[in-house]
Amino acid sequence: MAGQDWRIGVAGLGTVGAGLLTFLADRPGFAPAGGRAVVTGVSARSRSRPRPFDISGLPWFDDPVALATSPQIDVFVELIGGSDGPAKAAVEAALSAGKPVVTANKALIAEHGAELAALAESKGAPLLFEAAVMGGVPAVKMVREALVGDDIKSIAGILNGTCNYILTEMEATGRSFADVLGEAQRLGYAEADPTMDVGGFDAAHKISILAALAFGCAPNYAAAEIEGIEQVELLDIQLARDLGYRIKLVASADRSPDGVLVRVHPSLAPLAHPLAQAGGALNALFIEGARVGRIFLQGPGAGAGPTAAAVAADIADVMTGAVRPVFQAPAASLSPFTPVDPSKSVGRAFLRFLVKDEPGVIAAVSETLAEAGVSIESFLQKPVDNADGVPIVLTTHAVAESVLKAAIERIAGLPAVLDRPRLLRIARI
Amino acid sequence: MAGQDWRIGVAGLGTVGAGLLTFLADRPGFAPAGGRAVVTGVSARSRSRPRPFDISGLPWFDDPVALATSPQIDVFVELIGGSDGPAKAAVEAALSAGKPVVTANKALIAEHGAELAALAESKGAPLLFEAAVMGGVPAVKMVREALVGDDIKSIAGILNGTCNYILTEMEATGRSFADVLGEAQRLGYAEADPTMDVGGFDAAHKISILAALAFGCAPNYAAAEIEGIEQVELLDIQLARDLGYRIKLVASADRSPDGVLVRVHPSLAPLAHPLAQAGGALNALFIEGARVGRIFLQGPGAGAGPTAAAVAADIADVMTGAVRPVFQAPAASLSPFTPVDPSKSVGRAFLRFLVKDEPGVIAAVSETLAEAGVSIESFLQKPVDNADGVPIVLTTHAVAESVLKAAIERIAGLPAVLDRPRLLRIARI
Repeated sequence: MAGQDWRIGVAGLGTVGAGLLTFLADRPGFAPAGGRAVVTGVSARSRSRPRPFDISGLPWFDDPVALATSPQIDVFVELIGGSDGPAKAAVEAALSAGKPVVTANKALIAEHGAELAALAESKGAPLLFEAAVMGGVPAVKMVREALVGDDIKSIAGILNGTCNYILTEMEATGRSFADVLGEAQRLGYAEADPTMDVGGFDAAHKISILAALAFGCAPNYAAAEIEGIEQVELLDIQLARDLGYRIKLVASADRSPDGVLVRVHPSLAPLAHPLAQAGGALNALFIEGARVGRIFLQGPGAGAGPTAAAVAADIADVMTGAVRPVFQAPAASLSPFTPVDPSKSVGRAFLRFLVKDEPGVIAAVSETLAEAGVSIESFLQKPVDNADGVPIVLTTHAVAESVLKAAIERIAGLPAVLDRPRLLRIARI
Repeated sequence: MAGQDWRIGVAGLGTVGAGLLTFLADRPGFAPAGGRAVVTGVSARSRSRPRPFDISGLPWFDDPVALATSPQIDVFVELIGGSDGPAKAAVEAALSAGKPVVTANKALIAEHGAELAALAESKGAPLLFEAAVMGGVPAVKMVREALVGDDIKSIAGILNGTCNYILTEMEATGRSFADVLGEAQRLGYAEADPTMDVGGFDAAHKISILAALAFGCAPNYAAAEIEGIEQVELLDIQLARDLGYRIKLVASADRSPDGVLVRVHPSLAPLAHPLAQAGGALNALFIEGARVGRIFLQGPGAGAGPTAAAVAADIADVMTGAVRPVFQAPAASLSPFTPVDPSKSVGRAFLRFLVKDEPGVIAAVSETLAEAGVSIESFLQKPVDNADGVPIVLTTHAVAESVLKAAIERIAGLPAVLDRPRLLRIARI
């Protein structure tokens, strides 16, 4: 196709779509592999909605499926969003017609990636989704292409900028989760319904995709263990800091002989660790390979500019004519990874709970933990004004999750303990 | 070629070649895009030299050019090294025969990249060199492919692991450059002739390649301003630390309307900065794009495993059949970037010199700097045992290099100043 134009159809004209159209308008000569990229069709929910750029000269399609299968386009760019509905229908239609698809839709790929990969490969049509993970930071290309000559053991990082912004602001300003979330919503940094972000589901979509690429499996979003940041209190952040840690929403995928463990948890990272130092809306990722060792990647995980740049890079990849499996292995051989029972995983923990201010409490707690087989690493009791009791916070040495959970039940049952112990993990990074 | 084997010829069986053959032996099913990669020919200086793997079953070629053009291979992997001689001859021969070439040879690409790209593109043969920069960290793929949808403004990082190891050890152990270099040579971390590394030439090769990819120009190694770490004294490292900085060999490429400035300098990075925190043999890189913002990449920059993984990833890319320009733009349109006159560049500086221990010296130095138009940011005079004079160290606000150099001449001429001021740059990161 060198020299010939690539006709691009864009469905979805929100932030990322606007960024892409702006980019292509700014760079009319964008021809990374010979031919130019020219937008020849657009589709969105509303044609008349005010936009920062003029679409009146572009062929309009009310129906994204009609755009996806139009003979007027060579590449279909899906920026509608959502794991089902019109996004899925349009992507399926484009692939069925043998058209390359570029999408930023993490939910779609995490939940339907294997069947879409099978369709794409059967039609010889590339299906690319760099913008689905870490916005402008090329995590997908890194894992799928650059580390194909390695055996990846684990991936761990900060994949949701909204959560990272909220946690960073809570620590910096001493405000509550609800307060900072409300501000983020007013500023447009968080959605009106923030569940996907603050509930950890967005990060789980992303780590599920990276796990599939890294381990040569189908995405298995259903197997991800997910905990959001809604329950993180300012007190946890302050006490973690006193112990030398910062709380981050860490998404991780670990491969072991027993299978794969994919988790999203608010987790403690040592203050000097790069993950702890990635503040604000930054995304950050460690990838550990058997041969390459540890690679660290950091950058802006969202935003019109970065995400549009990732979509443009995928369009460039389509132009090169490269043929490679959508995930690490051909779709025909993909099966969902075997999830590891999270209760068998071993790690360090942070526990925080209120106790009555009376003699013998520390002894009772520490004896209970010792009897349950949990070894204490650090222990902090700190007076707090206006509290009903005294907060105790402790970190443990590595312990099996099932042992830890049993120990928490025993502590919760002690007469001097006033509330249910709050459990946070210490990130294995 | 899906399903069909790719026959690989490997010239050069040193550390990286050994890593690659070990990798392919460990992964006989390595078929990232359909066909398997099978080594069908090898060449090296000595056939009988002891090696960690058996080559007796592999077809042997005394002459790498004969291997490069052999009908028994589909892809030529050049791991000989050196900007000219057999490496260049063999790569030219393979490309002339239309065979894809994968190389780890930074000197070859930095010094002859444009002519080799023209040859490769005229024959439709890919020329890939991921392993030439940052070993197992995919900096080349990042800049050439992932950020093709951005306008890169600057690149800066630590690209030579040997220098980073030496500087880290000097600070950690309080030993001199010569002492640590000697130990590194005994341990095999530094070459018998360490000039390429410690002189900054290796880092200059790498940043020249990245600059070409980032800015769509031909590599222009001849225009790089290069200073190594041989003159970095332990005292500089200690005084920089007192001022809140760590000395790193920073390679950078900056684009401005006037052209491109490519530099390799021992430079000061603030202690909390990720570049300052990348210790030992790590490599680290910041890339700043107009749309994406700042991306940070860190990992092992050398070693058999990481570098072999990068070569394997390039072989995988060849298998996909992707066709894209060797650099950012088609070779026919490549021209060397216009170098910016370094004397016009503006930056902050660190100056260290010895003065007589007598009244009025600080006043004389600060007046001289003020008259020359250099503004002092911080100033430290610190007693040192057994010194002929008293060391003064200062950092400046941003100043044009030509103004700074003139000011240094004036300071050197002061009667109370006992030696030539030592100039180090503060990294613009």
